[in-house]
Amino acid sequence: MADAAERTCDVVVLGAGSTGENVADVVVRGGLSAVLVEPELVGGECSYWACMPSKALLRGTEALAEVRAVPGAAEAVTGEQDVAATLARRDSFTSHWDDSGQAEWVASAGIDLLRGTGRLDGERTVVVTDAEGGTVRLTARHAVAVCTGSRASVPPIDGLADVAPWSPREATSAKEAPGRLLVLGGGYVGCEMATAWQALGSQVTVLQRGPRLLPALEPQAGDAVTAALRDAGVDVRLGTAVTGARRDGTEVVLSTDDGGEFRGDEVLVAVGRAARTDDIGADTVGLEPGEYLPVDATLRVEGSAWLYGVGDVNGRRQLTHMGKYQARQAGAAIVARSRGEEVDVAPWSPFAATADDVATPSVVFTSPQVASVGRTAAQAADAGLPHRVVEYPIGSIAGAALFADGYTGTAVAVVDTEREVLLGVTFVGPAVAELLHAATIAVVGEVPIARLWHAVPAYPTISEIWLRLLETYRG
Amino acid sequence: MADAAERTCDVVVLGAGSTGENVADVVVRGGLSAVLVEPELVGGECSYWACMPSKALLRGTEALAEVRAVPGAAEAVTGEQDVAATLARRDSFTSHWDDSGQAEWVASAGIDLLRGTGRLDGERTVVVTDAEGGTVRLTARHAVAVCTGSRASVPPIDGLADVAPWSPREATSAKEAPGRLLVLGGGYVGCEMATAWQALGSQVTVLQRGPRLLPALEPQAGDAVTAALRDAGVDVRLGTAVTGARRDGTEVVLSTDDGGEFRGDEVLVAVGRAARTDDIGADTVGLEPGEYLPVDATLRVEGSAWLYGVGDVNGRRQLTHMGKYQARQAGAAIVARSRGEEVDVAPWSPFAATADDVATPSVVFTSPQVASVGRTAAQAADAGLPHRVVEYPIGSIAGAALFADGYTGTAVAVVDTEREVLLGVTFVGPAVAELLHAATIAVVGEVPIARLWHAVPAYPTISEIWLRLLETYRG
Repeated sequence: MADAAERTCDVVVLGAGSTGENVADVVVRGGLSAVLVEPELVGGECSYWACMPSKALLRGTEALAEVRAVPGAAEAVTGEQDVAATLARRDSFTSHWDDSGQAEWVASAGIDLLRGTGRLDGERTVVVTDAEGGTVRLTARHAVAVCTGSRASVPPIDGLADVAPWSPREATSAKEAPGRLLVLGGGYVGCEMATAWQALGSQVTVLQRGPRLLPALEPQAGDAVTAALRDAGVDVRLGTAVTGARRDGTEVVLSTDDGGEFRGDEVLVAVGRAARTDDIGADTVGLEPGEYLPVDATLRVEGSAWLYGVGDVNGRRQLTHMGKYQARQAGAAIVARSRGEEVDVAPWSPFAATADDVATPSVVFTSPQVASVGRTAAQAADAGLPHRVVEYPIGSIAGAALFADGYTGTAVAVVDTEREVLLGVTFVGPAVAELLHAATIAVVGEVPIARLWHAVPAYPTISEIWLRLLETYRG
Repeated sequence: MADAAERTCDVVVLGAGSTGENVADVVVRGGLSAVLVEPELVGGECSYWACMPSKALLRGTEALAEVRAVPGAAEAVTGEQDVAATLARRDSFTSHWDDSGQAEWVASAGIDLLRGTGRLDGERTVVVTDAEGGTVRLTARHAVAVCTGSRASVPPIDGLADVAPWSPREATSAKEAPGRLLVLGGGYVGCEMATAWQALGSQVTVLQRGPRLLPALEPQAGDAVTAALRDAGVDVRLGTAVTGARRDGTEVVLSTDDGGEFRGDEVLVAVGRAARTDDIGADTVGLEPGEYLPVDATLRVEGSAWLYGVGDVNGRRQLTHMGKYQARQAGAAIVARSRGEEVDVAPWSPFAATADDVATPSVVFTSPQVASVGRTAAQAADAGLPHRVVEYPIGSIAGAALFADGYTGTAVAVVDTEREVLLGVTFVGPAVAELLHAATIAVVGEVPIARLWHAVPAYPTISEIWLRLLETYRG
């Protein structure tokens, strides 16, 4: 270490995923210098092994289902999805796992990219070790932002680690559809990958320990996705705990708590995430390796004046768009503090990631899609908030009927009955992803129900569901 | 008249289009009795000759274009749209021009339906004449709501009335695609019908007097639709005034001010609307037949205590959803006044149609679609409002690229630089219709830009355009 090159800059960012890129971009725009440290591909999970490839895998299936539901157009579809072409499109959306385009963007944004593994080494210090073992010791004048993200967890199931299970990385980057795919876990990754690979030719089985898929969302979501996966030919097993795993020749064999046995060619483990803090030198600054970083509203590590934990690594909301949002807020806070300015930490300030707490949107790109923001009814109840739940079938909206024959979907709104504002909204149905931002603005803007009555949905769009929800609430 | 049956009720509603149905429904829910008078089909233009059939004609073309833009799925499309099946689907969406379903709904809502032509006959009085010449004299205790709508105008062009031109009614209900269709007018009806029939086999020519299609919208809209229509094979002539029309055998021949001549099998006249007030007994209450009814914020005719003009008939905003909105506001005002309650006419009150003035949404279902709400840049300038225009290409959003290869679109936001709120937003591009309601809520809710920063669009949706617009505004 004594021989390490030494450099000083304003901000060091560990991890060049979408969160780290945005922190660096914001602070550079704010007049600071930034070094961005990344041992793998610039762009991170989202670009290469998550959002982009998964949505590219799913989009063709969605578009075909939509056209098949419109008589007159459906007749033009006489063939099947071209799996090789779909995989090729997926490859192009990941830039063939080549990050030169993103590295160019980083350079053009005035950010200094350092390839290697960065580890904290006491206050404001990061040591970066490159692939050849060379090191650089970085000193940050103002802040170090840890944006190393998360990795898929592998649960402690007997034998599981030894069967070479797929993580979401392998599931999104596979070069061909496995014959039989076992999916362990019924959260959004498991549901999306089951939808994608079943449509692309695999026989998929989903094994979910709990009684419902997508358990964090409104129950209508998991129920609809379960029904749709089963219609598509997926074997969905709820309330089924996997207790052991082994390879039998090329087969993976999973055994379950009810004595069952499931055989496949591959098994995807999608049961949650773990913080990537085990190898960042956390102990040199008094933090626990492997734990999520505890942060305040500005994403600054509690008790520290200079260390930030932004994105998945703080465990708040593990979604690309929320990582980018946190990056904007944290970046603004770093810039303001570097100037000695007061940083307002009140809700909705330009420095606080308030939406993390009350207005996090998410879309599950299954068929049907599930788009939700804010609190579910269960979460409103847990928080002790006075509320009422309003539900309406989307298929009865003229715009939905025009969109697709037999359109089936549900909208659920959770209304704060004291403040008369929306606490949360969930849409379940085909093509609901783009309905969501209206709900996000209503929740974030705390727009009163009485004012929402003046927000007229254009006829005949699916958005007319808003009118029906309001009418149902008024009763 | 002396022999007419006499009846008294709380509210008489003239016209059972979507606006009239909604006025009647609201007042009945408010405890009043209502008689709904209609000489034609219950449900009105929207159900049979406008929104529903036009969108049914367009939906298959849209769905096919979307799937053809997704490699992997596109390969499954080897045939062409089935025109007969598309027309059959259109027919089913108009219930084959049979209103029994709507009449059932009217009855189930507790509304009294009277088939016949209603004419005002002095204060609070309407005489209804049925097809056999029988009459009923209705006296309204509280209000008469005129919801007779509008009809297509035929401009005073030499010979035009004699060539049996199509109105939007014929254009939306035609039993087959005309070989060559001339479209006079480049507003939303002309553009939608040109899109629909060109895709269904016609050779369409659009003749627009002004320099741009969709002249009331942001210029990006008309320019994009012009380019797309031309790509689809439509002959779009801008700055071309039609000066004469004649039939030559079965052909329609239009002559233009530049000496040109256009021949077709049919001509659609889509140059605007006129109030349907020429045969409602307007003169018996001191109003001018044929003129739009002048109304206040609660849709009550100026100077009257009991007469309302709701929907197209007042000329404010001739859109189905705005008619229904006005119906909700006027209905609430009628109920409140019948109880002797104070009616708040301030902006955004439950009785005022404030969105008419500042937040009217509309969607043009062309390819690309045009979805807009609130003020355009030109309208903001005309109103003397301090504003800035922000524009961003939608095709550069990851969600748009995933949606369709080569996605091309534009978003335009008009920001009030003094109040820091949105005045208007326009989206031009494939499948933007459902993006609109977010903008409508932002405009209606007057959500400050600083708060909109916390409304995070889910990644990777097309709605991420919101983030780019805000970033562009911040600069």
